[in-house]
Amino acid sequence: MKGKLPKDSHTIMNELVLPNDTNTLNNLMGGRLLHWMDIAAAISAQKHCNRIVVTASVDNVSFKNPIKLGDVITIEAKVSRAFTTSVEVRLDVWAENIPSGSKVKSNEAYYTFVALDQNGRTIPVPELIPETAEDIILYEGALRRRQLRLILGGKMKPNDATELKALFFEHGE
Amino acid sequence: MKGKLPKDSHTIMNELVLPNDTNTLNNLMGGRLLHWMDIAAAISAQKHCNRIVVTASVDNVSFKNPIKLGDVITIEAKVSRAFTTSVEVRLDVWAENIPSGSKVKSNEAYYTFVALDQNGRTIPVPELIPETAEDIILYEGALRRRQLRLILGGKMKPNDATELKALFFEHGE
Amino acid sequence: MKGKLPKDSHTIMNELVLPNDTNTLNNLMGGRLLHWMDIAAAISAQKHCNRIVVTASVDNVSFKNPIKLGDVITIEAKVSRAFTTSVEVRLDVWAENIPSGSKVKSNEAYYTFVALDQNGRTIPVPELIPETAEDIILYEGALRRRQLRLILGGKMKPNDATELKALFFEHGE
Amino acid sequence: MKGKLPKDSHTIMNELVLPNDTNTLNNLMGGRLLHWMDIAAAISAQKHCNRIVVTASVDNVSFKNPIKLGDVITIEAKVSRAFTTSVEVRLDVWAENIPSGSKVKSNEAYYTFVALDQNGRTIPVPELIPETAEDIILYEGALRRRQLRLILGGKMKPNDATELKALFFEHGE
Amino acid sequence: MKGKLPKDSHTIMNELVLPNDTNTLNNLMGGRLLHWMDIAAAISAQKHCNRIVVTASVDNVSFKNPIKLGDVITIEAKVSRAFTTSVEVRLDVWAENIPSGSKVKSNEAYYTFVALDQNGRTIPVPELIPETAEDIILYEGALRRRQLRLILGGKMKPNDATELKALFFEHGE
Amino acid sequence: MKGKLPKDSHTIMNELVLPNDTNTLNNLMGGRLLHWMDIAAAISAQKHCNRIVVTASVDNVSFKNPIKLGDVITIEAKVSRAFTTSVEVRLDVWAENIPSGSKVKSNEAYYTFVALDQNGRTIPVPELIPETAEDIILYEGALRRRQLRLILGGKMKPNDATELKALFFEHGE
Repeated sequence: MKGKLPKDSHTIMNELVLPNDTNTLNNLMGGRLLHWMDIAAAISAQKHCNRIVVTASVDNVSFKNPIKLGDVITIEAKVSRAFTTSVEVRLDVWAENIPSGSKVKSNEAYYTFVALDQNGRTIPVPELIPETAEDIILYEGALRRRQLRLILGGKMKPNDATELKALFFEHGE
Repeated sequence: MKGKLPKDSHTIMNELVLPNDTNTLNNLMGGRLLHWMDIAAAISAQKHCNRIVVTASVDNVSFKNPIKLGDVITIEAKVSRAFTTSVEVRLDVWAENIPSGSKVKSNEAYYTFVALDQNGRTIPVPELIPETAEDIILYEGALRRRQLRLILGGKMKPNDATELKALFFEHGE
Repeated sequence: MKGKLPKDSHTIMNELVLPNDTNTLNNLMGGRLLHWMDIAAAISAQKHCNRIVVTASVDNVSFKNPIKLGDVITIEAKVSRAFTTSVEVRLDVWAENIPSGSKVKSNEAYYTFVALDQNGRTIPVPELIPETAEDIILYEGALRRRQLRLILGGKMKPNDATELKALFFEHGE
Repeated sequence: MKGKLPKDSHTIMNELVLPNDTNTLNNLMGGRLLHWMDIAAAISAQKHCNRIVVTASVDNVSFKNPIKLGDVITIEAKVSRAFTTSVEVRLDVWAENIPSGSKVKSNEAYYTFVALDQNGRTIPVPELIPETAEDIILYEGALRRRQLRLILGGKMKPNDATELKALFFEHGE
Repeated sequence: MKGKLPKDSHTIMNELVLPNDTNTLNNLMGGRLLHWMDIAAAISAQKHCNRIVVTASVDNVSFKNPIKLGDVITIEAKVSRAFTTSVEVRLDVWAENIPSGSKVKSNEAYYTFVALDQNGRTIPVPELIPETAEDIILYEGALRRRQLRLILGGKMKPNDATELKALFFEHGE
Repeated sequence: MKGKLPKDSHTIMNELVLPNDTNTLNNLMGGRLLHWMDIAAAISAQKHCNRIVVTASVDNVSFKNPIKLGDVITIEAKVSRAFTTSVEVRLDVWAENIPSGSKVKSNEAYYTFVALDQNGRTIPVPELIPETAEDIILYEGALRRRQLRLILGGKMKPNDATELKALFFEHGE
């Protein structure tokens, strides 16, 4: 199985914020955005794996600025690292206000997907080969994020999370 | 503003997994579940605050078991702690297969919401008063989860996260 | 086949009234509520029968108070009586206005479902064993409601509806 | 306010049964049909009233034959009688199977709507002037159906339902 | 295979313009209307063919007047000509404003569909037998419209489009 | 008002084909694709105009290959020419089959939009400045396409369509 580049799975999605996506103050509801992000990330993961994928986890996502009715959402997704039968997808989300032309970063996120064969069993996926400097940073950080997922899921003891400690205590100690 | 009990915001949502919620292997897509969880959590937060709320963040969520077309999803939500202008909501999600009657825990999650007044400005929310032993555990853990959110959002240095260290290094060191 | 209790099929659904659910005066359209009620009732019937069910009938439903955009709908459903291959489900619906915290009863209704096997043929369902005083009232009233359905469907002569007469003429005559 | 004819409010709706409208046996869920019927009936009522209307009640509906994925639903609606601020709409529903060309009557129903002005207050509606023999039968039956609604809603004593008794006891007694 | 009349495939669809169908100025988005028109036209084509059909093309559609939130859309469709394995469907669309009762023609269009058997292969369809003077005009114009489709699709040289030239140069030259 | 480049309005949309988007042979229905294309094109037109836009027309679209359930649709849109108060948007659509990795061109299309101010009146839009050789071809072809729209809409006599004749009779005559 030949390795793939991050750009092979690069996926862009644009969506219009419609009335049913908003609350009564005309702000986009977070769950609708999480749903769009999952679809964009799943498309990206499927392009990498050439397999049906299912969402295994979503990392902590925070929503910084309110997004309004009528705004245009742009979601960019690409695979940041492949593990044996799963991939981590990095997402960047922007909201653009049409009349003002202002476009602000809304959030960044990581979704993880497991690849399945036609019988629904997990199946190995191609390796990811990072290209650019930014790709390499995302690729290396993936180990730390994975350790945090394992600890939060109760599957790893904090003491064993060598990579994660580097994240948490990088400013000294 | 009078404090409220966790049961005041207790919210139950049942949903049927329909074809459009699934991939071509008939597994529920994670984003659809994140969307339902956001609506259940927002209803719970609104019951506590009596205000329109917007999603501020969702903590790491992992999906353990595949959920199938036709399954019944049960989402239970309640406020686990209130901060000045925001609340953390704890979610428990089950999937029930009708023909077999088996019901399995799908996942647990925490969504955070900010309360807004009619002009869209943040506004103070009632205090949460934990009642049961389980309420108190959720209430106390909220501080650690909040520190993790702040660190992951780049708003707190790991060294300052006193409460979080207790979580990460509770087994010794 | 072991009998079941009303609480075994107890189902709660909460929904937010979104823009597409309302008319241009921001009132919830009745058909949307009838749709949600059918889903809640079908989930309840399926929990009782452990079978796929199809809606056989809905009894007269009246909508007393207008429900507004942004309100939270709470639907409670439970099986009120089982017949040979069908169940009657009782529904109670409330609408809650978030800013005021007021919660009003919107309506009560009865939906009837037929249980089907994997080939789509009707199949016997477990008996319902009423527990509380309220359960028993619902259980006994089910016979009268069934007679009314049969008469309105042209399948029973009014003269034969012994139970129904008790309803219609309970105040004397 | 000039009276209107039944044909002035005659409304036809055709819908395709899509996957999300069906259960896992590919049968149309009743609630979806009740939703479509409400929209067709509301359009019909609005054509009669030239006002926004809200659903006040739906009479007993029974679903005789299973409707399948891919079938074409035809709903015909027309106002059967106008009262002071409300109208009763009669619905006829058919399901057509495309490959076989067979078209079967699925059900008949009555929805009642209240007309509202721009401030959401009830407002008088035009009279209905029945034309054909069938129109007159529907027009006259409307009184009996209204009495049944009032009795079931607890707003009329059975003894006072003069018109309804004619329906129930028409075969003698 | 017996020929069919235009009225055999006559299909009427009424839809309410809901918030999610409109932009932030409350105007119906064209794509939503094109979607409804496709469903109405597909139902009409299926009634003619008694087969599953897929959209092969839509001819130039222009939207003359803005359609508003709350308007009632009426779409009428009927087969205007059958070719070997495909049919052309003629659509007429009106928008009705309820409070004013005004109803304006929104547009006319032609959709073409191909009939498929259960294995997804194209299959011959019944002939169309035009009845009225209007039917005959539509029937004859279908040849010209087909030539324009073929030229625009790069499958016919303009010089060979004998029928189309009659359309383009009918006013003399 | 400063002119804009085609790349300023470049918009990419990826969508997954879900069950409700398909017919009973699992082929994407054309109307759903026309709807997605309209949204992608409207986003592109809005980026160019910084105004709310409404669809004025869609040119002849033909669907060459069946698109299947589970395929990934990629829609690329960019403004090809601006007129006084309207813009023409060029769309390219591909369908990608995930397991095989094959990606085929589905169709090309042109949608035209009118820009509106906050009161819903048409308003001038920025000029389009074509950059690449491909941009210039699209820009120049826009005049011919516009003449065809005007002729088909009955607003121009074929004899006056100087530019269009060049398209139709370019191979001699």
